[in-house]
Amino acid sequence: MSWEDNVRKVVPYTPGEQPKLDDIIKLNTNENPYPPAPAVQEILDSFDISLMRKYPDPNAQILVDALAKTYGVKSSQVFVGVGSDDVISMAFMTFFNGSKPILFPDVTYSFYDVWADVYRIPYRLIPLTDDFRIEPKDYAQENGGIIFPNPNAPTGVLESLGTIEEIISANPDSIVIVDEAYIDFGGMSALPLLDKYENLLIVQTFSKSRSMAGMRIGFAIGSGKLIRYMNDVKFSVNSYTMNQLTLLCGAKTLEDDAYFCNTTSKIIATREDAKTKLAELGFTFPDSYSNFIFAKHQTADAAMIFDQLKKCRIFVRYWNKPRISQYLRITVGTPQEMDRLYTALTEILAEEETA
Amino acid sequence: MSWEDNVRKVVPYTPGEQPKLDDIIKLNTNENPYPPAPAVQEILDSFDISLMRKYPDPNAQILVDALAKTYGVKSSQVFVGVGSDDVISMAFMTFFNGSKPILFPDVTYSFYDVWADVYRIPYRLIPLTDDFRIEPKDYAQENGGIIFPNPNAPTGVLESLGTIEEIISANPDSIVIVDEAYIDFGGMSALPLLDKYENLLIVQTFSKSRSMAGMRIGFAIGSGKLIRYMNDVKFSVNSYTMNQLTLLCGAKTLEDDAYFCNTTSKIIATREDAKTKLAELGFTFPDSYSNFIFAKHQTADAAMIFDQLKKCRIFVRYWNKPRISQYLRITVGTPQEMDRLYTALTEILAEEETA
Repeated sequence: MSWEDNVRKVVPYTPGEQPKLDDIIKLNTNENPYPPAPAVQEILDSFDISLMRKYPDPNAQILVDALAKTYGVKSSQVFVGVGSDDVISMAFMTFFNGSKPILFPDVTYSFYDVWADVYRIPYRLIPLTDDFRIEPKDYAQENGGIIFPNPNAPTGVLESLGTIEEIISANPDSIVIVDEAYIDFGGMSALPLLDKYENLLIVQTFSKSRSMAGMRIGFAIGSGKLIRYMNDVKFSVNSYTMNQLTLLCGAKTLEDDAYFCNTTSKIIATREDAKTKLAELGFTFPDSYSNFIFAKHQTADAAMIFDQLKKCRIFVRYWNKPRISQYLRITVGTPQEMDRLYTALTEILAEEETA
Repeated sequence: MSWEDNVRKVVPYTPGEQPKLDDIIKLNTNENPYPPAPAVQEILDSFDISLMRKYPDPNAQILVDALAKTYGVKSSQVFVGVGSDDVISMAFMTFFNGSKPILFPDVTYSFYDVWADVYRIPYRLIPLTDDFRIEPKDYAQENGGIIFPNPNAPTGVLESLGTIEEIISANPDSIVIVDEAYIDFGGMSALPLLDKYENLLIVQTFSKSRSMAGMRIGFAIGSGKLIRYMNDVKFSVNSYTMNQLTLLCGAKTLEDDAYFCNTTSKIIATREDAKTKLAELGFTFPDSYSNFIFAKHQTADAAMIFDQLKKCRIFVRYWNKPRISQYLRITVGTPQEMDRLYTALTEILAEEETA
């Protein structure tokens, strides 16, 4: 018997690299290529540092209220946390306590199985179809909860509200979490379903469409009952998860809807252009509704391309995992960054052909 | 069977009130009455908001390195989190996974039993002596881990390094967490014991002595092995817990040791003065080595004083709990704030006597 016997041993999630080099093109963590809404600067300019001595508002009210207003729900329907990872982690801890396995796709956000492991939640992987789609009928089986992203990560595939509703309505005794981290890049949110389904929890983030990955803000919207349960668990773990400066920056950025629409539109346009360019270079990919493209080359090896791009100081994401080991997840950057990517890919593929 | 059967039902921790009133004297959450080190302003002035679009450093290296330098340990011995609550919560999840009960004092930080409940950890309360002291022999029994604050909260009582070492050395097969949230107000840290004991984890915070409760920064120092285990769990819950602005502010404040010494000295001086004043008003209290005094009046009822002070817009902390229901925990404020407290107490107690 040693203290090590009592240690929770886990295989942690591996986040995408955050290289500390200058002059790199970082298309590996789905960050937004544009800065956050300019008004955020006003918060930094006017913040009184003497306020730091006081605890922040444990209810994060200013941000909760701003989100409620933005999404047309009640403040009691909003939960905020330290990025959507914190929010989903809390949701796993709160809602997935049964003995039956929770269900999620086999190809999906690679944190789900890590949370299930750390919280000792049994789970069952539901294979996506060959073209990476969710088949709602596969989720009509006994389960202790359901989670999937829409659009899915890392595929970028969007499911219709009809598909989502089919899953939710078939599972009234389970919490269904729809992880909408990438919904603002052309997808339709499940928010309209909230009035009909008490068991639906929608999770979104400021890390992608709102250019604030660095501030760590995520949120969930659901029935008041679900949010109360989540807050009980949150207040059993850490009363004050978000600092006051973060709350203010988050609330401020929600005020500038024009900027938000403008930057997401630019990213969508760059993505659509990327689809043409990557196809010309010999890539295939499921149609993406996110800020990344999940691309496979017709002949060249994904791991090789990944390594070669890195030598060109271009970082994309690659997983050596079943079903996806020939794919690269490429974040949509600025048009200039994408041009450098296309140039590099052209050279890499030309060399490969002559090799 | 309904989704509610799978919900983790808990009784959450109740933080001290954060009233949104102006012109109140807030002596209820052990906040520092002085602002953080002035150099923190430089961080806000120079921070480039476009950096917010990128994820922060998941390893929080700038803050980890600054703490390692400040406390003379290796960076691999430092873990940082969103306040010491986040750090202790992670430590509970990481180290307290056995079937034997963990041990902590019956009168102590009221979050310990909440964490034990939320993580389903069995625990046993070890009564403090009549004068609120820890008796090391009481901890020489089978256990799955040990935690206590030093100085203890809400009593303010400091135990000697000899007492601490007696507990640690008697429990080589348990992780012993010493929660030093209040150590900078005149106590001796257990840091010198780290070289001898691999099973010791020391937790501190920026919320009290460093005036940064609002920024949520806590840290643990221990053997490299302990910190690795904690990081594995942390990376299984949320890769990026601390935002980049917070990391920079935290690292910056560590640079100004003179300011830190000056403000903690002022608080200690005000506390020593408060001991005289409160004794004159008829209060008794264990000798405090923290930034609060845990005081009981010889004749007047604690709940009555608490309510009356609130009417005077002075907030202190009161728990209607066994052994401590006649005590008030009074945070040490500025000398001016304390003067207003003494005046109010004088009036309340005079009225009580004539009543």
